[in-house]
Amino acid sequence: MTGGPARLVARPYTGSVTTYLDHAATTPVRPEVAAAYTEELGRLGNPSSLHGAGREARRRLEEAREQLAAAIGAEPAEVVLTSGGTEADNLAVKGAYWGRRATDPALRAVAISAVEHHAVLEAAEWLGEHEGADVTQLRVDSDGTLDLDHLDEVLAPGTVAVVSTMWANNETGVLLPVPEVAARAHAAGVPVHSDAVQAVGKVPVHFARSGLDAMTLTGHKLGAPVGTGALVARRDLTLTPVEHGGGQERGVRSGTLAVAGARALALAVELAVADQEAEADRLRGLRDRLVAGAVSAVDGLRLTGPADAETRLPGHAHLTVADADVDAMLLGLDMAGVAASSGSACQAGVQQASHVLVAMGRDPQEARSALRFSLGRTSTRDDVDAVLAALPSVIENARKAYATRRPRPAATSGSVA
Amino acid sequence: MTGGPARLVARPYTGSVTTYLDHAATTPVRPEVAAAYTEELGRLGNPSSLHGAGREARRRLEEAREQLAAAIGAEPAEVVLTSGGTEADNLAVKGAYWGRRATDPALRAVAISAVEHHAVLEAAEWLGEHEGADVTQLRVDSDGTLDLDHLDEVLAPGTVAVVSTMWANNETGVLLPVPEVAARAHAAGVPVHSDAVQAVGKVPVHFARSGLDAMTLTGHKLGAPVGTGALVARRDLTLTPVEHGGGQERGVRSGTLAVAGARALALAVELAVADQEAEADRLRGLRDRLVAGAVSAVDGLRLTGPADAETRLPGHAHLTVADADVDAMLLGLDMAGVAASSGSACQAGVQQASHVLVAMGRDPQEARSALRFSLGRTSTRDDVDAVLAALPSVIENARKAYATRRPRPAATSGSVA
Repeated sequence: MTGGPARLVARPYTGSVTTYLDHAATTPVRPEVAAAYTEELGRLGNPSSLHGAGREARRRLEEAREQLAAAIGAEPAEVVLTSGGTEADNLAVKGAYWGRRATDPALRAVAISAVEHHAVLEAAEWLGEHEGADVTQLRVDSDGTLDLDHLDEVLAPGTVAVVSTMWANNETGVLLPVPEVAARAHAAGVPVHSDAVQAVGKVPVHFARSGLDAMTLTGHKLGAPVGTGALVARRDLTLTPVEHGGGQERGVRSGTLAVAGARALALAVELAVADQEAEADRLRGLRDRLVAGAVSAVDGLRLTGPADAETRLPGHAHLTVADADVDAMLLGLDMAGVAASSGSACQAGVQQASHVLVAMGRDPQEARSALRFSLGRTSTRDDVDAVLAALPSVIENARKAYATRRPRPAATSGSVA
Repeated sequence: MTGGPARLVARPYTGSVTTYLDHAATTPVRPEVAAAYTEELGRLGNPSSLHGAGREARRRLEEAREQLAAAIGAEPAEVVLTSGGTEADNLAVKGAYWGRRATDPALRAVAISAVEHHAVLEAAEWLGEHEGADVTQLRVDSDGTLDLDHLDEVLAPGTVAVVSTMWANNETGVLLPVPEVAARAHAAGVPVHSDAVQAVGKVPVHFARSGLDAMTLTGHKLGAPVGTGALVARRDLTLTPVEHGGGQERGVRSGTLAVAGARALALAVELAVADQEAEADRLRGLRDRLVAGAVSAVDGLRLTGPADAETRLPGHAHLTVADADVDAMLLGLDMAGVAASSGSACQAGVQQASHVLVAMGRDPQEARSALRFSLGRTSTRDDVDAVLAALPSVIENARKAYATRRPRPAATSGSVA
């Protein structure tokens, strides 16, 4: 990771990773953003307090809200600050379900894509198990593209409370047709949420033009600290709070307002959006070099997603590897100083089949042997060359490991970053 | 606020407040904590990732968890990191209610003290309105002391899912008998949660010795950034998640693990607990000077809470002021450079009667004309003297304003920090 995190602080990164290609899991905090956050830590005042310190904190918070809204084509009043993407997804899915069901008890259906992040998936499943929701996972095809006919079928009975389809898949990088989903759902009178955590700053995202009713973004995927994020939500979308309390954020999300986090998030979003076009071109070049080099050097690699690069995130390379042990691949890369992921992170060291790849019709072995290289702001050509230098022997060893081991059974739960 | 926030950063505090006595709303971030947070912002890695950067991040996170647990008498595995007090309170109240009700549908009752923070109060009320809970607010007497006989009555039928009583009231500073509540509830087989947001670092708090099943703490009341906090919860307390997703924090609280926030929180708690005894003595002296000076200088001031100072937070002075306009008091203090609060913050500039004072039997006018001075780490004798110098004329003007205005009607909702 030449010139990577070491740039950020006086004390350089001293870890073992030299080639960080896991920006989709988390990406370095931008130096300007770290500076803004740190500056704010030296200030004082709860924005809900009426005295001078409180009013000054409120002013800085609202300026950050305006900055964030302007960068993504939203109104400031549409920005609901949260602790990150998971909270925003929970608020959108549960909050819209409860809010809509309260207006009409027949609105008990929830439609999500089959490839959603666990924050949407588990929130919807919980509504199904606990709150009487009828949850449908919308099909995707073998390229991960959403089946819009299935959406129309699910919308037809007029019982859907909310639709949620992500903007860009966190594992494969495949883009979903968000404006088309919004148009079809709106024709049926149904609000639409999208988890745009992987999309903001990577592809053009404009909330108003998207047609969405609600959209999730998170700071730590675009250069702000972990623990910052927002749900951008139209004022006419009724959301039941998930966090009750003092009534901050127009009653939708209670909790002391975090001025430092808001400023950091707003600046990071503004910078990422400003750089988006140039950065997308740069990363697409690096990513294509990585994919072409890998595919030509190693047999049995398969690029995930549609051939058309415009339908995938610019910095995302997701490959499946025939007959290879994924633990051995990740370990081999790690020992070569390369940080990558299998697409689906895991708990307790047990790799499980990716629900995304299973939804795309992949067989269980293939769904367990994926490699995700995700590039970001600090990625360089040297990083790509380091991967290409390491990959052939790493995969050769992983294939030997696979040949001598039986595949493990799939685990029942896992976390995906 | 001599030597206050200006110490924290190269760029000094430039706001209008010179005497900050609203530490119960939020308190300055400690310089060492800001440094730890900032240092961590220069590091990289999602603790759920398997590669070297992820494992290193995980190690730093778990070290912070151990540090935090040790400071409050808990086991590391009992620490569930959250985005702050509101989230922790929601997780405790809703999570324990859902978790217990799932084991026995008869467990539909929730008992909270009548003086809880809105995060507990609104969470419980929502369970009542939406989830079929039978919510009882436990009575307090005119000093704000909990009625333990009422608790016993509520526990008797064997239908209580969870009890929640705060450790120290955020408005009045009155301490509640948490170990006694825990003992009585446990005798009835009922788990107990306590919002200890105002107590940790102010009075001795030891989770294991308290007998509690769950306890909330938050960073920004003790020198860590807003947006950090934890629910400390025994492993045998079944909690249904409020934030679903990747299954972090033993499946109880999903969301990308915030290493910088965890390190900052742990260090702040450790430092606050280490300083607690000496700081309590120092603040009690300043607070008693403030109260004595105010009461002798102005007629018609009434100190809230029991006479015994040991039953109140050391840095908390809560006074009600007969026949005075609270807006005029706060504005007058603000113009004199003094940041204080009315005890209950408010929304949209409309002061409402404090539910805490109403529960203590105060009449509505008195419940709207309170002053809370809360002292903290940066408070000095100069701060107290500044308040005492300003108070007589401020209250005189507020009484003139009260005499010429009719009291406003109470608003329906508000936020309390």
